[in-house]
This record gives sequence, C-alpha cells and structure tokens, in this order.
Amino acid sequence: MELTTVKEALQIVLNNSEDFGIEEIDFLHSSGRILKENIVADRDFPPFNRVSMDGIAISSTAFNKGIRAFKIEGIQAAGSPQISLKNSENCIEAMTGAVLPKNTDVVIQYELLTIKNNVATVQLETLKEFQNVHLKGLDRKQHDVLIPKDTLISAAEISVFATVGKAKIKVAKQPKVIIVSTGNELVDVNQIPAEHQIRRSNVYALASLLEKLHIKAETAHIKDDKEVLTSKIKVFLTEYDVLLFSGAVSKGKFDFIPEVLAELGVEKLFHQVAQRPGKPFWFGKKQHKTVFAFPGNPISTFVSCVKYFYPWYYKSVGLEFPKSEAILAEDFYFKPSLTYFLQVKLHQENGSLFATPITGKGSGDLANLVNADAFLELPANKTNFAKGEIFPIINYR
Amino acid sequence: MELTTVKEALQIVLNNSEDFGIEEIDFLHSSGRILKENIVADRDFPPFNRVSMDGIAISSTAFNKGIRAFKIEGIQAAGSPQISLKNSENCIEAMTGAVLPKNTDVVIQYELLTIKNNVATVQLETLKEFQNVHLKGLDRKQHDVLIPKDTLISAAEISVFATVGKAKIKVAKQPKVIIVSTGNELVDVNQIPAEHQIRRSNVYALASLLEKLHIKAETAHIKDDKEVLTSKIKVFLTEYDVLLFSGAVSKGKFDFIPEVLAELGVEKLFHQVAQRPGKPFWFGKKQHKTVFAFPGNPISTFVSCVKYFYPWYYKSVGLEFPKSEAILAEDFYFKPSLTYFLQVKLHQENGSLFATPITGKGSGDLANLVNADAFLELPANKTNFAKGEIFPIINYR
Repeated sequence: MELTTVKEALQIVLNNSEDFGIEEIDFLHSSGRILKENIVADRDFPPFNRVSMDGIAISSTAFNKGIRAFKIEGIQAAGSPQISLKNSENCIEAMTGAVLPKNTDVVIQYELLTIKNNVATVQLETLKEFQNVHLKGLDRKQHDVLIPKDTLISAAEISVFATVGKAKIKVAKQPKVIIVSTGNELVDVNQIPAEHQIRRSNVYALASLLEKLHIKAETAHIKDDKEVLTSKIKVFLTEYDVLLFSGAVSKGKFDFIPEVLAELGVEKLFHQVAQRPGKPFWFGKKQHKTVFAFPGNPISTFVSCVKYFYPWYYKSVGLEFPKSEAILAEDFYFKPSLTYFLQVKLHQENGSLFATPITGKGSGDLANLVNADAFLELPANKTNFAKGEIFPIINYR
Repeated sequence: MELTTVKEALQIVLNNSEDFGIEEIDFLHSSGRILKENIVADRDFPPFNRVSMDGIAISSTAFNKGIRAFKIEGIQAAGSPQISLKNSENCIEAMTGAVLPKNTDVVIQYELLTIKNNVATVQLETLKEFQNVHLKGLDRKQHDVLIPKDTLISAAEISVFATVGKAKIKVAKQPKVIIVSTGNELVDVNQIPAEHQIRRSNVYALASLLEKLHIKAETAHIKDDKEVLTSKIKVFLTEYDVLLFSGAVSKGKFDFIPEVLAELGVEKLFHQVAQRPGKPFWFGKKQHKTVFAFPGNPISTFVSCVKYFYPWYYKSVGLEFPKSEAILAEDFYFKPSLTYFLQVKLHQENGSLFATPITGKGSGDLANLVNADAFLELPANKTNFAKGEIFPIINYR
C-alpha cells in the first residue's frame, strides 16, 4: 500500500475542517475560546478627560501668568460627577481616575507640591500641556474595533469585554467529540490487570489533550468484536461531530476499525502515513462527521493528536495554527524514509529554543512522554540531522 | 520615599511563599496542577514480552535450522492469556499488544509473509534477536520512579497515572484567593456607567490570570470608605490565604488600603517599586496571609500579577518559575531610572523569539493589552535599548 506523506495527510485533514457554529457564553468563562464577533468601544477611552496622577488641577493660564500658590477650592474624587473651578487662580485637589474638573487643564502631582493652610504651592518653571491628564478618546474612539472576530481569548480580552460591558460574548461552539479505545487487553484504571493485560491510558491522554483546547470529550471502550463495534460506532456517528479512535487500524486479525467504518459509510481519505510513530493512522469523513482513527501505541496516538487533530480544530474554529521551530541540540540519525517525530526536551537560551533528543524505547514507551516536552518533526528525505539545524516543533506542554 | 528595586521586590515576594498543603484529586482532572508524590511503576513496562507487530511468532532455533515454512497452530490475540507453541517448527499468529507465545522468541510481520493453506512462508535470510518483541521491563522496571514529585501535570503525566492505576493522585492544594477592587468610579459589567464612571475590569483580568494557574478566585468590590474597607478586609484576612487588591495604594485622598492594612496588623514588606507601570505596588504579610496590593491602572495590575504573583505561586507549590527571554526587534528608548515593562508582540523565526514594541498610550490603555502578547523587562540602569539585545520576557497568553 502506498503511504500518504505527512504533508499530504495534514493537507487532507485541513481540507476537511468543519464549522460548528456559534454560541453565546458568559464573558468570564471564555478564556481559551475563540471570539466570533467584533468587540467595539461603546464610548471613547478614556470616556472623559481623566486625571492620571493624584495632585491639584489648575488652569495653565493662571500658572503662565506667574501664579505658584493656589488656594484649594475642593476635591474631585474618582467616581464623583465633574465639579468646576470657580476662581481660575485657585485649584481643586484631583484624584487618579477622576474627571478633570471644569475650567482646569493640567494636574500637578502631590510629589511636586507643598500644602499649608489650604494653599498648594509649587516650585515649577514650566508645565507640559495637559500634564497628568489622559485626554478623552486618546486610547480608542467610540465604535473602534477593540478586538476582532476570530481572536483566541485570554485574560487581556476578558478585561476588555468587562470594560465595554459585554457580559455575554459570541464564541465558536465546540465540536462534540467521543474518544474510543479498542483492544481486549485493556482494563480500566481502577482495576488490577492480569498478567496479559494492561490499563487503558490513551483515551485519558487524548481527553487531556482536548481539554487543553477547552473541549470536554466523552470516552468509551469497545471490545474487539466486529458486531459490537459496528452497532456502537453507528450510534456515535449520529451523536457526535468527531470520533477519535485509538487502536485496531493496523494489520492484525482483530483490527476491525477500517472495515467497520467503511461498512458504516465513512469514506476513507487516507490510511497509512509515511511517519514514525503513527504509520497506521486512518482518516475519513461521513458528511459532516470526522473520524480520526489513530494507531494504538501510546506515542503514536499522542503525536497524531497534536500533529493532526489540533490544526484541524484550529482551522475549524477560524484560527491559524501557531507554527514553531526549534534548534536541534545534538546530532541525530534516522534512516527509514519516513517523517520522524523525535521526542525532545526543550530549553531556551538567549531567546532561542533548543531541542535535545530523548528517544525512549519506541512507540510503546509511554513513560518517555513525561521526560520530554515536544516532538521535533524530522523530514523523510534526510538521514543525518546535524546539531544546529532548525525543524518544526510541536510542544505538548 | 526610597523605591524598592524590581529585583529586591521579587526576592521579598519569593521569600514569603507559603505551603498550602496537599489534597487528593481524581487523576483525570489534574492537568495544570502540581504533583505531590512520586509516581512509581506498579509492574515492569512492558509487563510481559509484548508482540510489537502483527505477524507470526516462531522459534528462532527452527529458523536457524533452515525452516522457512511454518504451519499455523493458533492465534495469540491481544488480551488473551499466553498460549504455547507445541511443535517448535510451527508458528502462532500473534497480534500487536499480545503476550509473546511460550516457546517462541521472534515475530515476523505479515508484510514479509505469504500465507496459504494454513502455512506461513517467509523469504528472509536472517532474523534479528527478539525481532518485533518488546521485552518485559525494557522501558521501565517495577518500582522505578516514572514521575517525580513537584511535576506540573499535563496530558503525558495523566496517561502515566492511568497506566499505573493511580485513579487518585496527591497534588498541591490551591490557595484561597480573593480579588478586591476599590474605587467609587467603578460600576459592574452589566451596568451603564454615568459620564464620570467606568466599568470594573481589573478583577476579571486577575481572575482570568489566576484561572490559568487553575486557581478559582473569588472577587469583591468595596467603595472608598475607610470603615467599610476595614471591616470587610478584616473578614477576608480570616477567610482567605491571599488577598489581591487593585487600586487605592497611591497618594490619593481616598487611597486607604496601606493605612487600613497597617491597622489590621498586616506588615508592610515594601511599598513603591522602581518600575513602570506599577510603581505604587504594596506587598505585605500577616502570619500566613499574603497581601498583594496592586495599583489600579489596568496595565499596572496586569503586569504586577504576572511579574510577582505568578512566581510567588510557583514557589509556593514547589515549582521553578520558567524563565524566558526574547530578542528586541526594534530600537527602543526609555529615560526614567525605572525598570520598564515594555508591551510587545512576539513572533518566532528560525527558533528565535523576537519582541516588537507595542507601546500603547500608558498604564490606563487597557485595550493595548489585546494588541500585545507579553512584557519585555527593560532594566532601570539603561536608557537606550538596541535592536538585537536580549531581555527577560513574560508572556501572558
């Protein structure tokens, strides 16, 4: 069977992204979601001429006439309606965040004042225009777009939602995902495996990788029984947008997944990718349902998820998948003509990112994942990879 | 007043970290938490001689005697108890993940076989020792530490917890945090502010920054009234481990926080840091209670949280705070003798991280946070910062 290259496989996956629509959620719980509306300024920012240092507000005209001692007429507190300076040669104490009092145009900070008997005296030669005043509309104008649609939301965006009064915001709806393991050798986490059994772990790794994308996936396990697989997957195809499988896609006698999917009308878009680990990866579609059938080895499932599912999800919700590169810190040799996802430990030095190989014992060596941070993607058409060369990196932490 | 340097301030903050103890949680919901026990292998990995390719299991002795056609005796499926090869010149079909059948020591993959009339024929000259067999204990031995205490948990660790049957794991308990805004100018998100008012946003920015650390903080707002502040903060000091304030720490007439905290017996460890933004930052302790009183300007609060609270939290839960650096992409000039937290946009090129200044309109320009990604920390003892120079970076995305 002809292997699909990694580049082709990724392109096919991306060409099959899906739009899951839009929902409205509470702004405070939107971190990590993707904004699906433009956020505009509901008023100017600042919305008024805003005092930006604690001190006295005066008229610069009085100052320029030579006046240096100002009788205090009152206080302009933050959160109080604007008051007015009555005598242009007096001053008003004004607090950070307050509206600049009417008939004043500069604020002199307390650090430059002495106050005695309700008179503030300054020693300055000159003033800057609008000193310590943050002018209305200087930052942003009413109706300006503050955050464009298709932005990944973080704390910064959340504070802007609050400022413009967007208690509810429109975000990309998440796909409904089920993660399915197969394999009669698997028992659950709280069970003691017999000699020939092991515990399920891939579904939890996948669930956790999806949680990083704020997708709450469900999980299921099905024994290697063709009839049971068929009837269950049939239901999953109606109830979920995305099915992620782990295992049963290779050449074994009980690797029923490709056959069952075909019988259920899921179109195979590729099977077998020129990569290590993860060669038996199967990908297909049935109308708007997307099926990623990853090989069952732990590292294969893990790398396939971050290499293919992550960019597919980003494309689906309208985001560019962030590309990153790292510098190989040691020479490395890999002969087969396959793209090799090398496990590496990352460290940063002088603004550059270095990747040190942590090869482990192959695709079954789950524990090695915790010793590494990322996969360095080494191209198929090379055998010798030299220290200092730069390759794409997928950081899974 | 003498300003505390950024370095001194950070050191004081770190010297005042706190241990919040340990709790046991469900392994599947532990991503982002800090492991507080060693995770050890409950058995060898793999736990048995494991077939790693689908094919036939044979005895290499037979092969070395010249035999190339093997009658199929049976199938060893994954998840079935180990069976035995009865006639050493026959074979057993063996599936990936299965126990290697007794009396066999190599597996020849289906790709190298032809099977006809229940006889598998191979064309090979030689075999590798234990070909396609993942030997018991090769990856890890029983009782090996797979994950050490004080590890930040991600999907990789979660899959290892599952494998060794740790359904419950011990993690660092989170501090109980309340985030308090002050300021009479503030109204809530769902209200329409009057001309002289603005909406609360800092508490939500802080809540979201803490959510990134998996801390669920509570929020409160108190008007600028000394009596109310005193009675409420008194209660907070009994009910929470950490109090984060935003505002009322500068020189204004209604900046009651330092005074109120002193009256309530919170010891001031520093007030005023030689930094911009965030100069009025106040930090103190009362026994095991920690108080961060950040200045009220949005950018000041934001940068103080990531620069001081984040490393304090990491230290408290037993983690090293990850240090990162970026390369300044443009010349920059800053005169005051203060550490300047320059807002920057990051991009990566050839494995190196570059920071482009996005200065905005000062510490009140909240909307600028969404245009940038990070703060580049420019030292106080310099004025001219040249393109290509490397400085510490705090990425808040």
